[in-house]
Amino acid sequence: MKIIVHGWSCDARKEEAIEALFKRIETEIAPLAVVIFNVGANVPMKILETTSRKFFKICEMACFSGFLTGREAAKYMLERGEGTIIFTGATASVKGSAGFSAFAMAKHGLRALAASMARELGPQNIHVSHVIIDAAVDTPWIRENVLPTFDERRPEDIVEPDSIANTYLNLHQQTRDGWTFEMDLRPWVEKW
Amino acid sequence: MKIIVHGWSCDARKEEAIEALFKRIETEIAPLAVVIFNVGANVPMKILETTSRKFFKICEMACFSGFLTGREAAKYMLERGEGTIIFTGATASVKGSAGFSAFAMAKHGLRALAASMARELGPQNIHVSHVIIDAAVDTPWIRENVLPTFDERRPEDIVEPDSIANTYLNLHQQTRDGWTFEMDLRPWVEKW
Amino acid sequence: MKIIVHGWSCDARKEEAIEALFKRIETEIAPLAVVIFNVGANVPMKILETTSRKFFKICEMACFSGFLTGREAAKYMLERGEGTIIFTGATASVKGSAGFSAFAMAKHGLRALAASMARELGPQNIHVSHVIIDAAVDTPWIRENVLPTFDERRPEDIVEPDSIANTYLNLHQQTRDGWTFEMDLRPWVEKW
Amino acid sequence: MKIIVHGWSCDARKEEAIEALFKRIETEIAPLAVVIFNVGANVPMKILETTSRKFFKICEMACFSGFLTGREAAKYMLERGEGTIIFTGATASVKGSAGFSAFAMAKHGLRALAASMARELGPQNIHVSHVIIDAAVDTPWIRENVLPTFDERRPEDIVEPDSIANTYLNLHQQTRDGWTFEMDLRPWVEKW
Repeated sequence: MKIIVHGWSCDARKEEAIEALFKRIETEIAPLAVVIFNVGANVPMKILETTSRKFFKICEMACFSGFLTGREAAKYMLERGEGTIIFTGATASVKGSAGFSAFAMAKHGLRALAASMARELGPQNIHVSHVIIDAAVDTPWIRENVLPTFDERRPEDIVEPDSIANTYLNLHQQTRDGWTFEMDLRPWVEKW
Repeated sequence: MKIIVHGWSCDARKEEAIEALFKRIETEIAPLAVVIFNVGANVPMKILETTSRKFFKICEMACFSGFLTGREAAKYMLERGEGTIIFTGATASVKGSAGFSAFAMAKHGLRALAASMARELGPQNIHVSHVIIDAAVDTPWIRENVLPTFDERRPEDIVEPDSIANTYLNLHQQTRDGWTFEMDLRPWVEKW
Repeated sequence: MKIIVHGWSCDARKEEAIEALFKRIETEIAPLAVVIFNVGANVPMKILETTSRKFFKICEMACFSGFLTGREAAKYMLERGEGTIIFTGATASVKGSAGFSAFAMAKHGLRALAASMARELGPQNIHVSHVIIDAAVDTPWIRENVLPTFDERRPEDIVEPDSIANTYLNLHQQTRDGWTFEMDLRPWVEKW
Repeated sequence: MKIIVHGWSCDARKEEAIEALFKRIETEIAPLAVVIFNVGANVPMKILETTSRKFFKICEMACFSGFLTGREAAKYMLERGEGTIIFTGATASVKGSAGFSAFAMAKHGLRALAASMARELGPQNIHVSHVIIDAAVDTPWIRENVLPTFDERRPEDIVEPDSIANTYLNLHQQTRDGWTFEMDLRPWVEKW
């Protein structure tokens, strides 16, 4: 399989930006076959420190932008009657925690969007999935900024981008008689 | 127990409105002992019909207003080191469904807020609960507008406001060595 | 409310023992109005150390005895068309954990029994509930044998039997238009 | 990939039978790399009709035999420090239903076993998974005996064995930095 990487920046919280990006991809590259949404906003914040502005900022980053991405992808895919949309979740998608009200709200919300879209779009041949990644992902930024803050985390406790990519590819390649909506994914040594 | 009812209108999506209401109650009536959040926004809407404006409108009604209510109540309660905050959930709090992406997003989000606040505020002696009401509630408006749209719903398939009130009162009266975070509530004949 | 306590021993794993006990209560005391099942078997055991004998022993204690208790109670209650059956769960009812395969199996199984009975018997006016107690219960035996083994557990981290009893009583007193199937219960300081 | 199929019968409820089968495979064929447990026992049965004998029969078929299979596979795999064990679940693994107390008990129990084994054996490099198949599987027996009893089921509402096999193979091929414990799997047209 030959892979050509195209990189563009896009503020996924902006309706026009998502619309423009997808239009460009459809026009310049190829029809959207798989769309994956990854944006997070894992910011700790006590409830009393969560201003309305911060609430909406986190909601926009981790949830609304996923809604826009999914909806705009669905527009193209529904016309062609096929496609795969994958949303990346986290432990906060299924569990609240002290000091993470806004983030948990946004991730639970994103999961509900995915689950509703899966039920609505599945019978129209669009495969919608939600993958709960219960781990840090091995990127240079994470290695420098996040790992050092995890006291008890061992070096194995991190997932490679390639491993995630393989699992996402498998989701996309499932035949429609056996689609997966949700799966979790974590390193072998992770406690949960 | 003598109950005096005070009725005021309040747009719970407005920070200043919630602040003003709670200040007024604290000043004119009594310290807030229990605060219950009920606002819903059970509007069906296909994903392609969900505009950004509608997304945020439903988010504001069913989720952001709960966040404001909970946060502002917590301010008073944390100062006194006691209080009960109860959020009203629905089946959409734990299950997405076709045509209800935005509503499910908001209700899942509210549940995550409640779960995070319970973990954060519990050890500070604030009891936060989330009650999943899996039924229509018996009010004149529901009897006229909602029940007739339910083909298979029998007359027993509706919950009385008093029954909900009793359960909420029991939650408030739990001693803190045995607090409940979450419970469901439905009529005996309901399928689930 | 005047409460008279009758104490009898009964091996709840034995069909005849449960049958005899319920018959005796019905004959000598009063019709069974509420039946509560509490037996646990929280024994740590690695998977390779779990012999078939131990598997069934734990299954019998924590799950089969609950099945017998529920079924035999249902026989009397269905004849009269009313009654409440409450099963006591634990964190292991909803979460597996390393070294507790057999116990988690039995507690998950008990919860499934309760959930299925609730759906089957609810429309026949039998209220079936499952309460997940996420804490040690304050009994002399627990104080002596269990608490000392919990490194990080503070004295507040224990629930009083009376608090559980009150919550169970509230479940029994719910009117049938608003029954609860499941609720959790833990001390305010508990992490979860 | 060349596949050679060997077929032997084995009563998975019998400890000696599982032991003998695995020993034979290890000796005559190859080391166990992946072990998949599929036995079900989806028998409807009202709670009052569920005799102790039937309770244990269903428990043995759908749960105990999975325990034996998993434990015996783990013995070989732990010695070599690698392997994959996959348990097949159903909707009854996560949801009780009227008339299926015993089956739901056994499937919930099996899921708890899988979840506990995954946590215990994962850090020892054994990958344990649980796949919730929410559909009928396309076999001659199912086509003749089960499908005709499903009023509203369309021909598409069935999953091919090959589709399941591909997903299971993908689970086995995941690298250990990104293992999945649980996933669901259903036809695109399925309601859930």
